[in-house]
Amino acid sequence: MRLITRRLQGLVLIALLATGPLAIASDPLPSWNDGASKQAIVSFVKKTTDESSTDYLPPAKRIATFDNDGTLWSEQPAYFQLLFMIDRVKQLAPEHSDWKTREPFASLLKGDMKSALAGGEKALMEIAMVTHAGMSTDEFEKIVSDWIATAKHPKTGKLYTEMVYQPMLELLAYLRTNGFKTFIVSGGGIEFMRPWTERVYGIPPEQVVGSSIKTKFDDSSGKPVLMRLPELNFIDDKTGKPIGINEHIGRRPVAAFGNSDGDRQMLEWTQAGDGASLMVLVHHDDAEREYSYGPDSKIGTFSDALMKDAKKNGWTVISMKNDWKKIYPFD
Amino acid sequence: MRLITRRLQGLVLIALLATGPLAIASDPLPSWNDGASKQAIVSFVKKTTDESSTDYLPPAKRIATFDNDGTLWSEQPAYFQLLFMIDRVKQLAPEHSDWKTREPFASLLKGDMKSALAGGEKALMEIAMVTHAGMSTDEFEKIVSDWIATAKHPKTGKLYTEMVYQPMLELLAYLRTNGFKTFIVSGGGIEFMRPWTERVYGIPPEQVVGSSIKTKFDDSSGKPVLMRLPELNFIDDKTGKPIGINEHIGRRPVAAFGNSDGDRQMLEWTQAGDGASLMVLVHHDDAEREYSYGPDSKIGTFSDALMKDAKKNGWTVISMKNDWKKIYPFD
Repeated sequence: MRLITRRLQGLVLIALLATGPLAIASDPLPSWNDGASKQAIVSFVKKTTDESSTDYLPPAKRIATFDNDGTLWSEQPAYFQLLFMIDRVKQLAPEHSDWKTREPFASLLKGDMKSALAGGEKALMEIAMVTHAGMSTDEFEKIVSDWIATAKHPKTGKLYTEMVYQPMLELLAYLRTNGFKTFIVSGGGIEFMRPWTERVYGIPPEQVVGSSIKTKFDDSSGKPVLMRLPELNFIDDKTGKPIGINEHIGRRPVAAFGNSDGDRQMLEWTQAGDGASLMVLVHHDDAEREYSYGPDSKIGTFSDALMKDAKKNGWTVISMKNDWKKIYPFD
Repeated sequence: MRLITRRLQGLVLIALLATGPLAIASDPLPSWNDGASKQAIVSFVKKTTDESSTDYLPPAKRIATFDNDGTLWSEQPAYFQLLFMIDRVKQLAPEHSDWKTREPFASLLKGDMKSALAGGEKALMEIAMVTHAGMSTDEFEKIVSDWIATAKHPKTGKLYTEMVYQPMLELLAYLRTNGFKTFIVSGGGIEFMRPWTERVYGIPPEQVVGSSIKTKFDDSSGKPVLMRLPELNFIDDKTGKPIGINEHIGRRPVAAFGNSDGDRQMLEWTQAGDGASLMVLVHHDDAEREYSYGPDSKIGTFSDALMKDAKKNGWTVISMKNDWKKIYPFD
């Protein structure tokens, strides 16, 4: 009996330690410097999860949406999905001898991206469709999975899935620990993200919203497949973000995180809800440890108008330089 | 000390009772008669959740999709969404004096559904658009919520949300208890279902897939809204179901439940996956307690070809008459 009593005392002690002051005292956001950004996030989470607060939100309302490129992972020197397309064109080139002389492929295969993309939207769409359409959804998933498991970032030599922002990984986990459901809402391809977001961010496929092409159910071979068609279905950017959120999630986020003009409407939509909300923009202002880019960038444009409205609307702007102790997990 | 010991012993006893043989012995599907259908479901759940089974599925793969009309709730004497449209047209009629003489509204307002729908797809679309478009998503949510909270079924006088199948409610709960994530994949309107599926089925808005119309982000009034446009976006029926599943869920179901030819491709798509799968069709063969309808029905058509292929493919066909002890929770 005494032995059982001691064992039970031990269990009680463990239970107390696990939930007691010691555990609470540890910082869930260790890669964040103390400052206004961290404080805004922690204060929002505390007040919306405290049942005695007037800003309390029941768990069902705790929907948090995150842009991906430039918000959760790097988008430099180009969107990683564009780097995927380039690798894929090179891989497919032997089967397409005409590409040697046909733009935009000819320039792309010579490594001359500027000329390749001189054809603008049309050239980019052509590259996107030959690399993203014409196969089944299962085949495309395998293509992406193989690429993401092996391809290396041109500057750091790291896997692309290592080029994720450590402070944002902590933030995702912190929100989930506090009962928030985390979603990606990205201009990137939905099927380009889904094969790896659960492993890398803890976000399952059904919580990923993105741009898409149309698919077609085809059972002509006996075994049904979904074939990916070279036709746009949805662009999940700018005004498309609230539309995509409504279509996929069906409720309004209370917290939204982005880094560019493409995220503006998602943040406006979030702020227009009833009750407490948190709107956050990541500002790439750290030329030394990452990149510094703003209104003049072709990628992840953070216009002066956006910065002005962020201040006016009380949005939180994260300075990567000042707010983040480290950028990547490998730092 | 002795007091603490006793209390702890009490706690241990409670813990044992909660997880011990007594709890396990209770039937999670009490409204199901013992038989092949119940056995197929229970056997599938047991083998896919038993780590020592070759059919074991990790929780992430446990995706179960359910049709709604005729599978989770009744669809007689007409799809409930059509009954919503009729109520809505009557409600809106005072603002549209031209409807008194304009088809399909004139017949509909006289209660002559046959003449109202004589115009086929076009007439139905016109009724659908005046009742579903032209307002913001927030306004439509309120319209649906108000209707579903008050409108009564023409035959039973019950709320529509009471006309749900008790055995299927038990099945949804049983699957979730066993780590399955449950989704609705319905030909019905996605925004017509979302306001009440969490309360009635325990299925949150983001796990509802359905047909939709387009929306437009509009911030012209200062406060951004999503306006519902009179233009089809997606029909989540037949081949649309695997497409909708891929778009919204991003992984293939391992269990799928339907009741008509509109669910055939969803079941085929489910069966075409690797590993264990469960395909189930509800057959409305109980004229006494519910309805009996099959190949000749205009609603929830269960064709002879579907029945033949269900047998050939080893799908489970639920006989409402023989497999279900009760139909509705209020029975």
